Amino acid sequence: MTESPFRYSEPERAAVYRVIAERRDMRHFKPGHIDAATLQRLLRAAHRAPSVGLMQPWRFVRVVDSALRRQIHDLVQEERLKTAAALEARQEEFLRLKVQGILECGEVLVAALCEARERHVFGRRTLPEMDLASVACAIQNLWLAARAEGLGMGRVSLFDPAALAKTLAMHAGASPVGILFNPSRY
Amino acid sequence: MTESPFRYSEPERAAVYRVIAERRDMRHFKPGHIDAATLQRLLRAAHRAPSVGLMQPWRFVRVVDSALRRQIHDLVQEERLKTAAALEARQEEFLRLKVQGILECGEVLVAALCEARERHVFGRRTLPEMDLASVACAIQNLWLAARAEGLGMGRVSLFDPAALAKTLAMHAGASPVGILFNPSRY
Repeated sequence: MTESPFRYSEPERAAVYRVIAERRDMRHFKPGHIDAATLQRLLRAAHRAPSVGLMQPWRFVRVVDSALRRQIHDLVQEERLKTAAALEARQEEFLRLKVQGILECGEVLVAALCEARERHVFGRRTLPEMDLASVACAIQNLWLAARAEGLGMGRVSLFDPAALAKTLAMHAGASPVGILFNPSRY
Repeated sequence: MTESPFRYSEPERAAVYRVIAERRDMRHFKPGHIDAATLQRLLRAAHRAPSVGLMQPWRFVRVVDSALRRQIHDLVQEERLKTAAALEARQEEFLRLKVQGILECGEVLVAALCEARERHVFGRRTLPEMDLASVACAIQNLWLAARAEGLGMGRVSLFDPAALAKTLAMHAGASPVGILFNPSRY
């Protein structure tokens, strides 16, 4: 096949492959905050994700209240112990892992599915869970952008979605799918 | 906040944001095949996606048989009409859209959840659907890499997963989540 005229330059392609290869799920964070312009760039990258029928079902809740951050931390801790119990033989191995960094990181974002997504049917009649796939793409974009900015990001799905939705006073039908400890410096 | 020493150079960051902004869901393809080295790079990018508990639940099935490609096309066409019927008022608008390009594109890949993923519990006790989120990240990586290579990619979730799994003779418990018309030249 002849080369596509739309192919990116070699340094650009290298940067794309680099960020894909170097993205990591971080758990150790330095203190400090992210400037507003950088956070905007990260969120804009997230919003440019694909979604079935352009439903864009993702919402990102920025948690700025420290008491709320503590409550979220406690919810994850609670689920961590329940997951450990369910793991049986691998329980000790699991408990040695650091599974969160909510209290130390610079920003906490909660990624959620929005509440009105049920009315979208395009591409979801047989695969209704495609809304989650769309949110996952948005999170991946945010993760890649954060890596390029030199910012670590962690993602945790160790929580009870109903309890977290209640803690955040979400609309009925909305559902959190991930807590992002993001972004903070390495 | 002082700048992170791990921040990418300005041209590298620009390339990352460019590919995120320019990724598109393509439906019109020129004929022609992709060389093996490029396809390997795309699939390697997919495999570098994050997954909860490093379960890596994704599988990519490359469809090279033209009769099988026709069967997949027919399954999508069947679901397209059912979706149109479910859309009611927006039915005509939907039917005017081109929802696939399976017969014309250079490569057809079916993205699927693997069959043994039920044994993974880390990060999935309360959110079992996180396996789908992991596959979605892999697809997004593949999509971004394809864009950088100047290759169009389309993704369709208009099919009955059980029917497609049967057509592809998948293991029990495995489940297709997307058909990728990918990659082909713009």
